[in-house]
Amino acid sequence: MSLQQYPSVLLENAVNEFAKLPGVGRKSALRLVLHLLKQSEEDVDLFGNAVIRMRREVKRCRSCHNISDTDLCDICANPARDHSLLCVVENIKDVMSVENTQQFRGVYHVLGGIISPMDGIGPADLEIDSLVQRVHGGEVHEVLLALSPTMEGDTTNFYIYRKIADSGVPITTIARGVSIGDELEYADEVTLGRSIVNRVPFTMKN
Amino acid sequence: MSLQQYPSVLLENAVNEFAKLPGVGRKSALRLVLHLLKQSEEDVDLFGNAVIRMRREVKRCRSCHNISDTDLCDICANPARDHSLLCVVENIKDVMSVENTQQFRGVYHVLGGIISPMDGIGPADLEIDSLVQRVHGGEVHEVLLALSPTMEGDTTNFYIYRKIADSGVPITTIARGVSIGDELEYADEVTLGRSIVNRVPFTMKN
Repeated sequence: MSLQQYPSVLLENAVNEFAKLPGVGRKSALRLVLHLLKQSEEDVDLFGNAVIRMRREVKRCRSCHNISDTDLCDICANPARDHSLLCVVENIKDVMSVENTQQFRGVYHVLGGIISPMDGIGPADLEIDSLVQRVHGGEVHEVLLALSPTMEGDTTNFYIYRKIADSGVPITTIARGVSIGDELEYADEVTLGRSIVNRVPFTMKN
Repeated sequence: MSLQQYPSVLLENAVNEFAKLPGVGRKSALRLVLHLLKQSEEDVDLFGNAVIRMRREVKRCRSCHNISDTDLCDICANPARDHSLLCVVENIKDVMSVENTQQFRGVYHVLGGIISPMDGIGPADLEIDSLVQRVHGGEVHEVLLALSPTMEGDTTNFYIYRKIADSGVPITTIARGVSIGDELEYADEVTLGRSIVNRVPFTMKN
C-alpha cells in the first residue's frame, strides 16, 4: 500500500506510536487504535496510564536486578526462599518461566542480557560484576546457570564460570532437556521444571 | 501456561491492558510491555499520551461521521471535492481504503457499522437516518454504496436502497471486481479503484 491518508493527525500519531512496537505493522497498529477508539475514554486512560506508570515507577531489585515494585523484590525479600541457591538468568521473562515451573525455591540473579558480540553486548553491559560479588559474599552455596542453550548462552556460561570458579562455590547448569538452539522462554513448564530438578555440575563440556 | 507470576503489579497491570487488545495474547502483551520498559520514560510518555489524547480529542465529522480533528472533516470541508457524489461506507478504514485508490473525488457517509442481526447490530445503531436526510437534502445527485460484498453488506445495501429509492437519486454500487465474501479493507488498490470507476446502477440483483 502506498502512503496512507489518515483522517486525523491525532489518529495518525497514535498509529505511529503503535507501529514502533516490535512485530506491529501499520495495518495492525491502525486496527489496535481503531479498537481503542471504540472503548470509553476512561478505559483508554487506564490503558495509557498503566503503561506510563509502569515505565516511570517500576524499580530494579537491588539484589537480583529483577524488576520489582519495591527496592528489594518479593523473591529476595522472602525468608522462605533458599538464599544459598542462586539461579542466574538472562532476563525478567526467564525468572517468570522458572517461577512458573514451581520447581525452584532459591533466589535469582538477572544478567539483563547475554554476551553477544554480534549485537555488541559484552560482559560490561551485563550484571556480571554484581554476580561475582554476590557469589564471593559467602551466602551463596550453589550457582545454577539457567541461560538458554544457545551459542551466546554457552559463551556467557563460560565467561561466568571463569569469573567465579575460584570462589569454590559449586556451579550447576540446568539439564539439557531443553533442545539445543531453542530459546528458554519457549520451553514448556514440564521440560524446564525437570531440567531444574536434574541439574548437573557445570563443566566446560556439557 | 498456568497462572503467571508477575514480579511487579505495575508490570502486571500494563500486561493486562495490552492483553485486552484484539489479537494480543498474554505472551505478546508481556513482550510488548518489556519492550516499552527498555525505552526512555519520555518515549513511553509519548506512546501513552498519544493514545489517551487520540481518544479524548478526536471528533466525528458532523456531516459524514468520519473521524476528524475538526467539526467538519478535511474531505467535507474541501470545495474541490464533488459534494453531489456520496459514497456510503461501513467505517473509517473503508474511507481510508477508498481514498488510497485516488479514484474517488466525491464525499463520504460513514455508517459506523453494518446491519448484522447475529451481532445484534440493527439499522438504528448505524448512521442511516442521517444518510436518508442527506440524500433527501437535494445536494446529492448519486449515492455510491461501497459496502463489503458480504451477506451483511448486501442486507445493508437493500435496507438503504428501500429507504432512499423514493428520493429519485440514482443509486450505484461498486463493481464486484472484489471477490464475493471478502472484506473490503483487504482488497488491493487497483481492484478497488477499478470497481469504483466501473460502478453500476444498483438493482436488487447485483
